[in-house]
Amino acid sequence: MAVKFADRMSLLKGSEIRALLALTAKPEVISFAGGMPAPELFPTEGVKEAACKVMDSKGKVALQYTTTEGYLPLREKIVARMAAKNNINTTVDNIMITSGSQQGLDFSARIFLNPGDVVLVESPSYLGALNAFKACQPTFVEVPTDDHGMIPEELEKILATTENVKMIYVIPDFQNPTGKTWTMDRREKFMDLVNKYEIPVIEDNPYGELRFEGEFLPSLKSMDTKDLVIFLGTMSKIFAPGLRIGWICASKEILGKYNFIKQGADLQSSTIDQLIADQFLEDNDLDAHVEKIKAVYVKRRDAMLKTMEETFPEDVKFTHPEGGLFTWCVLPEYMDAKVIAPQCLEKNVAYVPGGSFFPNGGKENHFRLNYSCMPEEKIVEGITKIAEVLKANHK
Amino acid sequence: MAVKFADRMSLLKGSEIRALLALTAKPEVISFAGGMPAPELFPTEGVKEAACKVMDSKGKVALQYTTTEGYLPLREKIVARMAAKNNINTTVDNIMITSGSQQGLDFSARIFLNPGDVVLVESPSYLGALNAFKACQPTFVEVPTDDHGMIPEELEKILATTENVKMIYVIPDFQNPTGKTWTMDRREKFMDLVNKYEIPVIEDNPYGELRFEGEFLPSLKSMDTKDLVIFLGTMSKIFAPGLRIGWICASKEILGKYNFIKQGADLQSSTIDQLIADQFLEDNDLDAHVEKIKAVYVKRRDAMLKTMEETFPEDVKFTHPEGGLFTWCVLPEYMDAKVIAPQCLEKNVAYVPGGSFFPNGGKENHFRLNYSCMPEEKIVEGITKIAEVLKANHK
Repeated sequence: MAVKFADRMSLLKGSEIRALLALTAKPEVISFAGGMPAPELFPTEGVKEAACKVMDSKGKVALQYTTTEGYLPLREKIVARMAAKNNINTTVDNIMITSGSQQGLDFSARIFLNPGDVVLVESPSYLGALNAFKACQPTFVEVPTDDHGMIPEELEKILATTENVKMIYVIPDFQNPTGKTWTMDRREKFMDLVNKYEIPVIEDNPYGELRFEGEFLPSLKSMDTKDLVIFLGTMSKIFAPGLRIGWICASKEILGKYNFIKQGADLQSSTIDQLIADQFLEDNDLDAHVEKIKAVYVKRRDAMLKTMEETFPEDVKFTHPEGGLFTWCVLPEYMDAKVIAPQCLEKNVAYVPGGSFFPNGGKENHFRLNYSCMPEEKIVEGITKIAEVLKANHK
Repeated sequence: MAVKFADRMSLLKGSEIRALLALTAKPEVISFAGGMPAPELFPTEGVKEAACKVMDSKGKVALQYTTTEGYLPLREKIVARMAAKNNINTTVDNIMITSGSQQGLDFSARIFLNPGDVVLVESPSYLGALNAFKACQPTFVEVPTDDHGMIPEELEKILATTENVKMIYVIPDFQNPTGKTWTMDRREKFMDLVNKYEIPVIEDNPYGELRFEGEFLPSLKSMDTKDLVIFLGTMSKIFAPGLRIGWICASKEILGKYNFIKQGADLQSSTIDQLIADQFLEDNDLDAHVEKIKAVYVKRRDAMLKTMEETFPEDVKFTHPEGGLFTWCVLPEYMDAKVIAPQCLEKNVAYVPGGSFFPNGGKENHFRLNYSCMPEEKIVEGITKIAEVLKANHK
């Protein structure tokens, strides 16, 4: 067949995570590979009641087309929640509903990036974002990070010497994949640089509400005085990912561009899902639900970190996340997490090798562990098995 | 602000239809502008029951992430339906669920089109497809059509003389905007040319099941011997658009590319919507529901055509659709449907001016009328008012 695909397609491979998830679907596998919320905590009864109420009282609205920007009452609730949770004062005119925050990532690349344009990302960064951006054929520049977040001196060096930087993508709270959170000082210095160079920032915040300990830190968007920050929010980790409810908060001018892209991309996000989410928020205390989630996840994190401390070789380092879903392991440089992963899978334990979180490659001695989706005893069992494999590969 | 948008953004405007829909939202407006199904026919009770059943029996699955290709039982039902309704024998491995068929249009452009590549479309063609394609900066070549469909001699002339034709987009059944259906002869000749030149075809079929009269005609996909046709299906017009359930049927190789794009675009379509649709199809007779819809729409079409015959100036031509949602009016060339639209809106009647259905512009003497969404007496009243305005503008 002579069919020719567009140039961008040669850059796209399936996400390694999603390929791995297929292998880990077997019930005997202890999987730390995905980034899924714990299904046993889903508010299934509340969603059922919300769905019934929606279909009884607004069934025709729920099944019909709606506006591209999304269902107004839900956008109003998001405005209120952003004020309470993210310190962001905004209006419904600055909010557009998306199909998960993944859609906001895809749209961001399409709005800001010509082929060859530069996008700055934390090193490492979220694989799903990198894959979405790749479809726009950008050049990735990785900004060095440490335990406090993106390093401002390194960022400034890059901004001062790099042409065509069109977008900076960051996850300041409980980052994926590292679990790290930027300090206040780093946030302030970052915003100073952003204001100086006037580069749009995509602030991805799927995990911000899942803080187990430590102090709340304001979002970059709340510190944004020049309408440069585009904030991506989502219900996936605090409510349910199956409804695909995310949102974009941006200036009216920028949000208008997102609206044009969304019209072509899918017209609108699911009407019925938006109405169910709205009804659920109307009738339930989401804060109480988030507390319930956090109480479970903090125990799982503790079980994971404790077992790692007890069983991993001493020169294997890992992060101590104050919230979110992930910890990040750094192996001695001679070890390759991609080589070790199949050995773990033989013992029915899975993680995601870290190499593909570095868009420019070359760092295979990392892996990501998710702790939200396995009960504590499985976490202990799985981490102990990984430790055995690590020791067997250790010099 | 110094923010720079990508080049593609300069080509995108909001859809005129969606802007117009905002104006027509007032209850006193008789709107023939949208392409919405009649909400009073939505199976709200059946969807409520399906939603309850799903949340009771598979609540945790419904609220969790699922695979990019979509929920397997729903894909199995789509395979069975395509065999029954579209004469297409396929397998679940050839089906991916999308968020409406609009998403399939967006993905198609991204998979096949580099900037400057040529996409062939019927003249006129669906505005929402043209807008989605524009984000990939193609060159549009309009293929002349007549009452029997795309004209093969014209298509061959274009294929023989045009470089970089990467995709052909067609709606052979009850086309949007014209309501026209390709004859069998035209389908055969089209497929001969497609096979000769080996160009991928996007066959968009949202209305195929809504045939009021005349003989069933096989889909292009069912005549595809070289895996060149990509078929886009949707539940929007036969079930409910609010759930955003569409699908792509293509060869495994091509569908793999769609899967890569979808991973970056939104990971997956709504899990709960897929499970609700699946449960609804399990427990209800969709064929019987489609018959109910058709019985209503055919009366509305008849009311519209009859009133147009009785009231429109003789030199205003319009199509006689055998199914679907639209009829298409051709005014004498000196009349401009864009100029007349605000005069109609003053009388609280709305249609969509036809100019923007021609991607290369210059044909303002057309407009599209939708008959699915208004009761017969409103159709008679609205068309009579449009006739008055046409007469007032008539030489």
